[in-house]
Amino acid sequence: MNLDIALLAGDGIGPEVIDQAVKVCNAIATKYNHNINWKPALTGAAAIDAVGEPYPDETHEICASSDAVLFGAIGHPRFDNDPSAKVRPEQGLLKMRKKLGLFANVRPTFTFPSLIDKSPLKRERIEGTDLIILRELTGGIYFGERGRKDDGETAFDTCTYTRAEVVRIAKKGFELAMTRDKRLCCVDKANVLESSRLWRETFQRMEKDYPEVTVSYEFVDAVAMRLVQWPNSYDVMVTMNLFGDILTDEASVISGSMGLMPSASVGDKIGLYEPIHGSYPQAAGKDIANPLATVLSAAMMLEDFKLTEEAAAIRAVVNKSLDAGIVTEDLSEGGKSYKTSEVGDWLAANI
Amino acid sequence: MNLDIALLAGDGIGPEVIDQAVKVCNAIATKYNHNINWKPALTGAAAIDAVGEPYPDETHEICASSDAVLFGAIGHPRFDNDPSAKVRPEQGLLKMRKKLGLFANVRPTFTFPSLIDKSPLKRERIEGTDLIILRELTGGIYFGERGRKDDGETAFDTCTYTRAEVVRIAKKGFELAMTRDKRLCCVDKANVLESSRLWRETFQRMEKDYPEVTVSYEFVDAVAMRLVQWPNSYDVMVTMNLFGDILTDEASVISGSMGLMPSASVGDKIGLYEPIHGSYPQAAGKDIANPLATVLSAAMMLEDFKLTEEAAAIRAVVNKSLDAGIVTEDLSEGGKSYKTSEVGDWLAANI
Ligand SMILES: CC(C)[C@H](C(=O)O)[C@@H](O)C(=O)O
Ligand SMILES: CC(C)[C@H](C(=O)O)[C@@H](O)C(=O)O
Repeated sequence: MNLDIALLAGDGIGPEVIDQAVKVCNAIATKYNHNINWKPALTGAAAIDAVGEPYPDETHEICASSDAVLFGAIGHPRFDNDPSAKVRPEQGLLKMRKKLGLFANVRPTFTFPSLIDKSPLKRERIEGTDLIILRELTGGIYFGERGRKDDGETAFDTCTYTRAEVVRIAKKGFELAMTRDKRLCCVDKANVLESSRLWRETFQRMEKDYPEVTVSYEFVDAVAMRLVQWPNSYDVMVTMNLFGDILTDEASVISGSMGLMPSASVGDKIGLYEPIHGSYPQAAGKDIANPLATVLSAAMMLEDFKLTEEAAAIRAVVNKSLDAGIVTEDLSEGGKSYKTSEVGDWLAANI
Repeated sequence: MNLDIALLAGDGIGPEVIDQAVKVCNAIATKYNHNINWKPALTGAAAIDAVGEPYPDETHEICASSDAVLFGAIGHPRFDNDPSAKVRPEQGLLKMRKKLGLFANVRPTFTFPSLIDKSPLKRERIEGTDLIILRELTGGIYFGERGRKDDGETAFDTCTYTRAEVVRIAKKGFELAMTRDKRLCCVDKANVLESSRLWRETFQRMEKDYPEVTVSYEFVDAVAMRLVQWPNSYDVMVTMNLFGDILTDEASVISGSMGLMPSASVGDKIGLYEPIHGSYPQAAGKDIANPLATVLSAAMMLEDFKLTEEAAAIRAVVNKSLDAGIVTEDLSEGGKSYKTSEVGDWLAANI
């Protein structure tokens, strides 16, 4: 296969972890006879510094003309204390999602047996957890009308969803459930929000098209509880943009493997793959960041190209590195630890 | 003191747990020489059945002319599967909050040493947890304009906040922090929402009026993580209605003592006190529900009347019952358990 992959390393530890994923993918390409053409482009604070824009048009062109995007992380502490600043890295993220049509964020949460004791939750609560949250990513209150009235003394945001937007993400959810345990949970706040009632009613109408899928409806507040109590009771969950932002982050800490969790943001044309951890500025440039989440994100990318065997090979080598203790300091438990680049080299060599 | 207390038992286990709180308060009244005049009124599904309305005008009159409201729980399974039904118990709740001006929901999360092992979280994560979430309760997306467009194919909800609404809840937050560890966390999504930027900017302006309070600003998604990771790192948190709905429920399960957590909803005039657990219909009428959350809610009520000694007496007798194992079956760990009414009798007798 010939693949053009846009490479958006971004800020902080982004470039370092991206480098390792590239090494691993290149090893896969060699072994399985593919050709990957990496196309680096600027994003985040790095892009603001270079061209004054977190998601420059040139970067968009590169992404839009590629087969997929591999993404590191964005965000820089100098933007943290002024959320009303005119130019912010996050705006680049939102613009990118919208312009690339990445309407579904796919966030798996699963456990690694060897890491389960790192979870803040008790072992018996998380063993067997294997859930996916599908977050709507280009609609809702993130993209509705917002502003000020009364000389700035009143602020408003609008959450809007159209039937078509809900059908599109629901379809992804039903299809995903069909490839898994066939259980789908629509997470909403239909007892209060009209947009949630549209969601629920749309899911209810679609149930008959997927008779094998067992659908449940839960309110977001109840889910925020159950995710902590019984994360292993969920299979696929689908929810709107804002609830997804909160619940995916909540879910990310329950497995104890946050530093290893990959994600995908997909649309009708192109997918973007990124680790869920952030830019972790304190570790930037130190060659200590854990590259596994990014490497596993690359595996999700290959999976989406139907390169199932290749994706499995990446997951296998990651497991092997964990078993062999070839890990960065966050996972070494006081034992020997390896540099980011050493872990990447080991993974590539063991593909 | 002479107190008129509206008594809204509501649905499910509401009446049973309310009965025990009344017993305990009556014992307090006798011992400390107060006079409590209980004024029962209908609410929830019970009110819908009786008069077709979950929060009838007559109930409102009784509440508005009382010094406080003691509330059980509302909700009935027959309303669960149709969130778009015309008359629902929850609407009564929202109407009641708005009409009584209960703009601040106060939700403490703390641990009982004897119950700590019931938590889904590991002991070392929750020991020492003692936080309060202040949820704005009469504004935001719960009460903004909402509706359908395009023949019902588009739905929208509006989140609106005025400066005055934010100042009012922020003031409560700063004042509460002053009575505690003097740390305040403003939880928002100021990197996306204009209403959150109004919140943050308002808190920032008010900081100088409370120089002793250390204020932090966190995004709601980060808080959803940290609440599970390090709940004991928080003191007072303040947030808007919708985020508060999610975070208070998430917080409620971390201590392992959900069945014991009280809450207050307060405004400028009147306060409403209720257990955070729901109507638990499966247990209704069986005399098995745990009354402690309701009893502790009554303690919050007395505290707000500055009856500090009386409130402390209630908390002390609750601790004594836990130590003595005079508990309902949810806490008995297979040992001897007591009926709801027996626990209430014991508490009243031991005041
Ligand atoms: C940075 C922020 C705008 C973004 C979001 O809220 O979507 C982030 O939290 C995420 O989840 O990717
Ligand atoms: C029943 C529902 C409308 C209500 C809310 O969302 O406020 C409940 O979840 C709560 O937190 O009291």
